[in-house]
Amino acid sequence: MADRKETLQRAAVKQPGLASLFNPQALAVIGASANPEKVGYKVMYNLVQNGFPNRLYPINPHTAEILGYRCYRSVLEVPEELDLAIIAVPAPIVPQVMEECGRRGTRFLVILASGFAEVGRIAEERELVEITRRYGMRFLGPNIFGIYYAPTKMNATFGPTEILPGKIALITQSGALGIALTGKTIMEEIGLVAIASVGNKADLDEVELLEFFAADPQARTIIIYLEGTRRGRELLQLARQVVREKPIIAIKAGRSQKGARAAASHTGALAGSDAVFSAGFEQAGILRAPDPDEAFNWARALASQPLPAGRNTVIITNGGGVGVLATDAAEEQGIYLLDDLPLLERLFREAAPEFGSLKNPIDLTGMATPNEYRLALRGALEEERLHAIIILYCMGAEQIPRDFAQAIIEEYDGTKPLVVAMLGGAETVEAVKLLNRAGIAAYDEPEEAVRALAALYRWKDYRDRPLPRGEPELEVDWAGIEAVLKGAWTEGRLQFLEPEVKEILQLLGLEVPEYRVAHSLKEALQAGEELGYPLVLKIISEQILHKTEAGGIRLNLRGERDLRGAYQEMLAAVGRSYPRAPLRGVLVTKFITGGVEAIVGASRDPSFGPTVMFGLGGIYVEVLKDVVFRVAPLSHQEAREMIGKIRSAALLRGIRGELRKDIEALAEALYRIAALVARFPEISELDINPLRVMPEGEGCLVLDARMTISEVR
Amino acid sequence: MADRKETLQRAAVKQPGLASLFNPQALAVIGASANPEKVGYKVMYNLVQNGFPNRLYPINPHTAEILGYRCYRSVLEVPEELDLAIIAVPAPIVPQVMEECGRRGTRFLVILASGFAEVGRIAEERELVEITRRYGMRFLGPNIFGIYYAPTKMNATFGPTEILPGKIALITQSGALGIALTGKTIMEEIGLVAIASVGNKADLDEVELLEFFAADPQARTIIIYLEGTRRGRELLQLARQVVREKPIIAIKAGRSQKGARAAASHTGALAGSDAVFSAGFEQAGILRAPDPDEAFNWARALASQPLPAGRNTVIITNGGGVGVLATDAAEEQGIYLLDDLPLLERLFREAAPEFGSLKNPIDLTGMATPNEYRLALRGALEEERLHAIIILYCMGAEQIPRDFAQAIIEEYDGTKPLVVAMLGGAETVEAVKLLNRAGIAAYDEPEEAVRALAALYRWKDYRDRPLPRGEPELEVDWAGIEAVLKGAWTEGRLQFLEPEVKEILQLLGLEVPEYRVAHSLKEALQAGEELGYPLVLKIISEQILHKTEAGGIRLNLRGERDLRGAYQEMLAAVGRSYPRAPLRGVLVTKFITGGVEAIVGASRDPSFGPTVMFGLGGIYVEVLKDVVFRVAPLSHQEAREMIGKIRSAALLRGIRGELRKDIEALAEALYRIAALVARFPEISELDINPLRVMPEGEGCLVLDARMTISEVR
Repeated sequence: MADRKETLQRAAVKQPGLASLFNPQALAVIGASANPEKVGYKVMYNLVQNGFPNRLYPINPHTAEILGYRCYRSVLEVPEELDLAIIAVPAPIVPQVMEECGRRGTRFLVILASGFAEVGRIAEERELVEITRRYGMRFLGPNIFGIYYAPTKMNATFGPTEILPGKIALITQSGALGIALTGKTIMEEIGLVAIASVGNKADLDEVELLEFFAADPQARTIIIYLEGTRRGRELLQLARQVVREKPIIAIKAGRSQKGARAAASHTGALAGSDAVFSAGFEQAGILRAPDPDEAFNWARALASQPLPAGRNTVIITNGGGVGVLATDAAEEQGIYLLDDLPLLERLFREAAPEFGSLKNPIDLTGMATPNEYRLALRGALEEERLHAIIILYCMGAEQIPRDFAQAIIEEYDGTKPLVVAMLGGAETVEAVKLLNRAGIAAYDEPEEAVRALAALYRWKDYRDRPLPRGEPELEVDWAGIEAVLKGAWTEGRLQFLEPEVKEILQLLGLEVPEYRVAHSLKEALQAGEELGYPLVLKIISEQILHKTEAGGIRLNLRGERDLRGAYQEMLAAVGRSYPRAPLRGVLVTKFITGGVEAIVGASRDPSFGPTVMFGLGGIYVEVLKDVVFRVAPLSHQEAREMIGKIRSAALLRGIRGELRKDIEALAEALYRIAALVARFPEISELDINPLRVMPEGEGCLVLDARMTISEVR
Repeated sequence: MADRKETLQRAAVKQPGLASLFNPQALAVIGASANPEKVGYKVMYNLVQNGFPNRLYPINPHTAEILGYRCYRSVLEVPEELDLAIIAVPAPIVPQVMEECGRRGTRFLVILASGFAEVGRIAEERELVEITRRYGMRFLGPNIFGIYYAPTKMNATFGPTEILPGKIALITQSGALGIALTGKTIMEEIGLVAIASVGNKADLDEVELLEFFAADPQARTIIIYLEGTRRGRELLQLARQVVREKPIIAIKAGRSQKGARAAASHTGALAGSDAVFSAGFEQAGILRAPDPDEAFNWARALASQPLPAGRNTVIITNGGGVGVLATDAAEEQGIYLLDDLPLLERLFREAAPEFGSLKNPIDLTGMATPNEYRLALRGALEEERLHAIIILYCMGAEQIPRDFAQAIIEEYDGTKPLVVAMLGGAETVEAVKLLNRAGIAAYDEPEEAVRALAALYRWKDYRDRPLPRGEPELEVDWAGIEAVLKGAWTEGRLQFLEPEVKEILQLLGLEVPEYRVAHSLKEALQAGEELGYPLVLKIISEQILHKTEAGGIRLNLRGERDLRGAYQEMLAAVGRSYPRAPLRGVLVTKFITGGVEAIVGASRDPSFGPTVMFGLGGIYVEVLKDVVFRVAPLSHQEAREMIGKIRSAALLRGIRGELRKDIEALAEALYRIAALVARFPEISELDINPLRVMPEGEGCLVLDARMTISEVR
């Protein structure tokens, strides 16, 4: 909750926008150094070397000049207010320097030093925040390697010097990885528009940076390396809008259990469930890449290629083997290879020799020269029923790959997405670079090209998704629900009783089979008479969570005699298994048969807040782990899609002659449960197990439910 | 069957061994050329350039000398018998040239030309085989790029010239891909001991080459690129032995449906089911790589690293972010990161600064110098409870990656597997090369390093697997089974009747609930009396495969009255749905309840012959595709493991209070079914659905079964 409150406070600070951070007119480097071994030298060097055009003030009390710039003893001596100060001094001196920045008047700070929250020094990090609050400053860091922005020629990092300007913005939580990845972009000629190292995110975080890059026309694709986030909900909300304009690729490390633990000990990041990250990314339309290499491969295509107008893809190759490899990858990635054979025959007959294959992959054979590639590409570009093109090339004997690349570059008109893979050796690596420089997404492996095109298609699907319409206001007695919640609060209980949960769910509009709470055998028998047999008996106690194991549940009681026996046996059994549990009565309810059992859960994720979970009962959730998560609230559309995501969804649609189940009612239930937990985030866990989904038209029924809140108001 | 017969014939030809193919004393290049544009020049050039040390005879009627070698007008003029002739003439001239080779006396041919079976010219390819049979020659190809063998300095390919000698043998079905991959190995400094391009495999194929490399001490790891095989069973049988000595990595293209089709149209390869390829590879212990890059990455580690003595692995890093990425990959790959914190603390305290993490990943932090890496590596090498090491390095500001690589090389003693990933730019790429040259498996990405180590572990697991013991001879009345099979043969039927299949399965030793075949209501009633109720009635007709849809099955008949009604209704229903089907009576059998329904199938795969399939009934096979395949026959051990491979296996072990099912009986049934189809390969399909697996100790029961044979003897 501390994070939540902090967020609110932070939002209250007047936001000056991040323009001065990326385009500072006056920039100081505090701890600038003339000693090439020092970080403070490297930052100055990178700034100077990249031709930073605005006013630059190195600060160092012991030096007169650094790299031709006059050096100041303190930031207080600088003759103007600063837009940005890069703080390159060790952790212990940082607070003092920050104070001076505040007094001098400084808008943004970039705090490089490590040795704060990531090594457990929480108080030291909090102090940084407090200082900036006092002076109305904002900052990046600590524990970062700097900031880079191509349009203002600002390389204020201690990473690589000659970053290639381009269209990809990189936000990275890891500094070391950020430096290494930047080095890789240089080697592979991937152009970057910006790098923001966010590190411990004590103040500015990925959400605010994403907001800046979203509005920056120079950034065409955004890559975020993330280990955890405190503002998952804001991130998703913002991303949902951004992806309509430009793609976001996330590399979320810590997807395994041990990985998450390693991430936590790395930046002290509060890592939410990885499954919820995946779910949230999908809801928001963020592309999740498995690793940094893949992210940059995707970004190459996303930042350079137009969107396809449809799904028909063609593979043009000079090698059958790579054609097969690419076909495998295409099918796995859901890329559709057009198989209109007469059309393909007409388009590519001229380019392929008689013994080539025209079945897609179009095999021009090893005899193909640049001219055959040219002809084939022309055919593919001209045909409007083809929407995307994959070109593969295997270097043959005595061939000059550069010539093939050149032919492709000359022929390509930019009207359709084109990805290319060239395999061979040093010569094809050079040819791939030629293609990339010409704005064609090119790779060393067929699978890389195919997966990059698939990412482009996924982004298109996200863009084309209808925006959630404004859902009609739910007609729910929220006050009534709050009253039930308060009932437990007033008792100081965190664990709710089954009748309480059922009452809440009933008020929420879910269907609950009729029930009574009995406090004696007599009351139970009377309830039986009112409800009609067969019945179920369940013990009510906040301390008995596993009723079956405690002997606290009796099913299918067919008459008074059954009920009488079961009541007494149950109380005896519970007395043995939980001799000290407070018993709050016995729940008497109808015994329901038919339908399929679902499990619907809700829990509060540390990163994303309220989430809902859905799966089918029995072995599906427990053994097959066939579950789907979503961040709450949901639109109706999302609730319906959620149901389709489980592998066992066919059970609901009715297989092997069984009736279709009431999927609409189930979707409505998910929608309402998501609304409930979004409205009352103090609900830390809700578990409806089972929710019986009846045949179509017969709704779905809450048979049992548990709920916990995390705090008492 | 044509393939099968050919294989037998081939085996009958006297096998001279492949020594002369890889180490020819006298070698002719037919179609050698002085024109650098020709394949015949390139092969000569590569041979000469690589310093082929033995007698070399270029053959070309129009040239006197090529690259300093005297040229002969015809192979007939060569002054000695040839070990090997590389045939570099166009397809139409190949047969004539082969005849001459035969007449001159030649052991092996390498036929480069394409334009044979891969473009549908089957007869032309058959002719090549016939010529070589006449002269007792063997050959590689056609449709290949040649052969390379490092120990004899023989580069008889038209691919790259300067192949790096090493320990990896490559067998490739695709020529173009083979050339490209060879180029890549040069660029990435991956050493090859041999390349055999097998192309259309008209004669020599991957099995015989594997046999050669298995016996060749210079080959430490074998990579096979495969699109299909005609000799799957021989391949597996051989591989099972080979992997005890050296790892085999297969890249099997055509794993998707469209990919398989593309593969088929590429080399005319008869592609078996991809799932069966995976199953067979696993049974034999072949490592299946998803793509060529991954295969070579694995091979690097497999060819250079010792096997780990146990499962405890440590990650040493200077960047938390890459540590997390590697941890994710390790968990996904089943690599165990030791978490004995006191031990780790003791081993690495000295190497890491106070604020570094010692929790594995060991984070030496960005401040680590080569010396800290040295200390950490030393600690990891010395501790006997650590069995494998992953070192990660992110290039930091002002660091010289080469120095880090050097420190690792100096410290590493070769006693434990070590994989390294260095991230950065051109400098780390150079450092990675340094490491690889020193025999340490190094990569550009943490995931690559982790997956390579995982491949090493998988190979170790395959090696350590107990060899299937000689299974006791099954006491089965095979003659009785053959008699039932003949019963259908004599009628010229391919489809068996349910009572026939049940009789076969009973003779095989499977349990079948008692049944009678009735030909009238009277006989049915009498059967009912003998068997006792409840009963099931089923129509018997070879034309009615889907009894339920045809109304040809009635369940749970509780007495004579039920039986009487069901009999008449069923015959009426079948009469309506299949008015012309021959009815061969009515099967009367016990109605069985309880247990779990399994589906056991067997079919004949075009590549691997008889296979068995297993899954659970209901939605598990049909919707969740939760099935496992195995190539028959099985050992008992394999049958047991097969059951554990399905995701829903927990249902058999008993979950949620249910009894454990009779898994032993199920394994025995699988074992026997595999033995049946292995013995009678004419069984093209067998489908036991359901096989009811009863609670432990109660066996499993064949409730329904169908069978088809592919030919009548």
